[in-house]
Amino acid sequence: MKNKEHILIIGAGLCGSLLALRLGQRGYNITLVEKRPDLRKVEQDAGRSINLALSDRGLKGLRMGGVEDAAKKLCIPMEGRMIHHEDGRTFLSRYSGRTDEYINSVSRPGLNMLLLDACEALSNIKLIFDHGCEDVDLQDASGTFTDYNTGQEVKLKADILFGTDGAGSAVRKSMFLSREFLFSFSQNWLTHGYKEITIPPAEGGGFRTANNALHIWPRGEDMLIALPNLDGSFTVTLFLPFRDSDYCFDNLTSEEKVIEYFRKEYPDAVELMPNLANEFFENPTGPLGTIKCSPWSTYGKTLIMGDAAHAVVPFYGQGMNASFEDVVVLDEMIDKYEGDWPKIFSEYEKERKKDTDAIADLAVDNFDEMKEHTASELFQAKRKLELSFEIEFPNEYNSKYSLVTFNENIPYSVAMKRGRAQDKAILNLLADGKLTDHMSLKEKLDIVLKETQDILHDDAVVKNL
Amino acid sequence: MKNKEHILIIGAGLCGSLLALRLGQRGYNITLVEKRPDLRKVEQDAGRSINLALSDRGLKGLRMGGVEDAAKKLCIPMEGRMIHHEDGRTFLSRYSGRTDEYINSVSRPGLNMLLLDACEALSNIKLIFDHGCEDVDLQDASGTFTDYNTGQEVKLKADILFGTDGAGSAVRKSMFLSREFLFSFSQNWLTHGYKEITIPPAEGGGFRTANNALHIWPRGEDMLIALPNLDGSFTVTLFLPFRDSDYCFDNLTSEEKVIEYFRKEYPDAVELMPNLANEFFENPTGPLGTIKCSPWSTYGKTLIMGDAAHAVVPFYGQGMNASFEDVVVLDEMIDKYEGDWPKIFSEYEKERKKDTDAIADLAVDNFDEMKEHTASELFQAKRKLELSFEIEFPNEYNSKYSLVTFNENIPYSVAMKRGRAQDKAILNLLADGKLTDHMSLKEKLDIVLKETQDILHDDAVVKNL
Repeated sequence: MKNKEHILIIGAGLCGSLLALRLGQRGYNITLVEKRPDLRKVEQDAGRSINLALSDRGLKGLRMGGVEDAAKKLCIPMEGRMIHHEDGRTFLSRYSGRTDEYINSVSRPGLNMLLLDACEALSNIKLIFDHGCEDVDLQDASGTFTDYNTGQEVKLKADILFGTDGAGSAVRKSMFLSREFLFSFSQNWLTHGYKEITIPPAEGGGFRTANNALHIWPRGEDMLIALPNLDGSFTVTLFLPFRDSDYCFDNLTSEEKVIEYFRKEYPDAVELMPNLANEFFENPTGPLGTIKCSPWSTYGKTLIMGDAAHAVVPFYGQGMNASFEDVVVLDEMIDKYEGDWPKIFSEYEKERKKDTDAIADLAVDNFDEMKEHTASELFQAKRKLELSFEIEFPNEYNSKYSLVTFNENIPYSVAMKRGRAQDKAILNLLADGKLTDHMSLKEKLDIVLKETQDILHDDAVVKNL
Repeated sequence: MKNKEHILIIGAGLCGSLLALRLGQRGYNITLVEKRPDLRKVEQDAGRSINLALSDRGLKGLRMGGVEDAAKKLCIPMEGRMIHHEDGRTFLSRYSGRTDEYINSVSRPGLNMLLLDACEALSNIKLIFDHGCEDVDLQDASGTFTDYNTGQEVKLKADILFGTDGAGSAVRKSMFLSREFLFSFSQNWLTHGYKEITIPPAEGGGFRTANNALHIWPRGEDMLIALPNLDGSFTVTLFLPFRDSDYCFDNLTSEEKVIEYFRKEYPDAVELMPNLANEFFENPTGPLGTIKCSPWSTYGKTLIMGDAAHAVVPFYGQGMNASFEDVVVLDEMIDKYEGDWPKIFSEYEKERKKDTDAIADLAVDNFDEMKEHTASELFQAKRKLELSFEIEFPNEYNSKYSLVTFNENIPYSVAMKRGRAQDKAILNLLADGKLTDHMSLKEKLDIVLKETQDILHDDAVVKNL
């Protein structure tokens, strides 16, 4: 039986463990190898993206794996962005005018544990931890690993090899270094880094601030955000330039300077973070990068997925969701072409690459939107109008955010194209005073939709020359 | 005297030799190291971009070095694209409506020799050939080289180090591998490769076809081009997919197949290439890639320039021109900040990076234009209209091609933005039938300029949110 091929999956993070689960459910023999210890047994590192935003594309992947309901128990719904102004005023900017459209704060290790438990329940999935990948033979579908417990070298071989080993992927590195084919590759770093800080639970339990929102303190070049955790705490992330700025990681070198900066920019947040200075110096400063590459597969035997193939910056909250969607798209290709891995891999990339490129670009755009535009009047007027459209005409209008986040059946690339055209239409109509107060909302919607079509048409003439 | 710093330049190609010449003229002590033999003394490899298009930005660089007049003696003016249709018909599409705007076919080794001779005439420039760079110490401004004649390892150290060692730059590789800073990097390969073939001079001397044009045989996915040489020959370049096409490098594996392909697609060219099959199998197949990276400088001591910093595909004929312009921009920064190399390097990148990114993107776009659009009716109608504008209103209209190629005082990024808006305006006005026959040319120009402004305005509203 064809289904019994042996599959080696390198990397048991979110993408790798869902992939193992799904392929295991399909009857393949899986070995899932992870360089870190089993996170169900050891304490995790502090300061490394403890929670994430889970939305409809990710949920679709979890549903496919039969673990959606279990995952939902780990979720805290966030209905919008809670914007914190300098003067302490706050404003909830909802993600959608439709009440069933919201995102979820979820614990990364919690979700990962759930997936590993589900894998372990299948007898045809073997989990191996503490094994770091040193080298991959792409053509042989084999890898050489160091067993961190014994220090010994271990070779694992399969019929098919998947690299789901994250942004620093060893499998991708083997592809980069190969001279057998032309490997297109990009790594683009933002000039900002990030650092995580904690808002602990309130004394006696509960949350110290609203837990139904993703909090944002937009300050132009800098930004603080916070997502709630089930235990009543929030994980706060500071995004700040590394250098060449009045306040930057390079010059926030003393406790006084850090407190001065936070008091000045985020006075209402400072009160919620009793361990600010300690955590600032204890937690690592992380870089923010986008990785794109092609081809994702080699020799019809080896495929990279998730962050290994397309790491994105975190500003659209789509990194994990995109990785789970990868598994959904791959699963569709297996449905169509099962037995022919070269075809599955090439069709998968043909279908998927344009969409992961799109979400990568959207995520970079959204950094500007979050740190800067959320505080702009024109942007706020656009959001207000879009929310009205979504409330009054829920079947006729979806904002870019909604297309990307809540419409899992619309590919990212389509959502980007349409969403950008809509944004351009509304911003220009507003800036040029073409949406006047005496118009009805329906009239405004019609003008926006017409202008969006014109923009898409004009772009298509150039594109389809 | 500050001027007497010792400068090590790795790579004595077109960019490195112009850079050495200019810095030598400024009084610096230069060591210019090249891995290849002195091309003034040995025969060159066949089949590797023997001629190039030299235009106004490149000429400006050569003028700065005092070698423009000498270089012009190596040039053959090309006034436009000679389009060869399948049926043998030809059509000259001029590059500009202004008669003083044309590009030049020039021999790469000829121009390189001229620059090396000019360097050698300066006593403060030392030339070293046959030394391959193995490793660079970015912070120390030193490099380790292998002397190919003796096999010995040689270390060269300076105060300042420049990497002008081309698309495969060893200096850039040192930056990529360094973990001291975040290095953004991309290499993007086209799915097409290229191969050079020769049209020899006519018997008894002279050219076998018109020598005042860049010949193009546009065939949708494939393309043949030809540039004239001073000896009466043409260097022909075939651009063809590597694989997955009816005809591609992977399946053109026999003489019969090659001849069949050329006879079918380029019947009028076949007659001019008596050594077609031999050359096809003797000459290498080259890849076509774009390289972008940042930062270009490290430790205020080491800077990469030219292809090492920004390799582009050849379709805008701007690779060499951009590299020469690099030297012009650097020279302006030295004028402003001489003595402060860290400042010179950071201001140079701040000024220059957006422009080399722009020409890289324009060059990729132009591949589609050359192989495909030159054969499209809408595109031809656009070019015809633009030429009329340039002839009748030479001070009021410059096409994108003209902005990029003939306006050396307009940065590439500005030329791209304006040029793309103009293209979009004209293509849409033509497609929508808004430029009618009974309009005067001046009326058409006014509508195009107005529509261009509207496009730039609408984009700016989104951009400047």
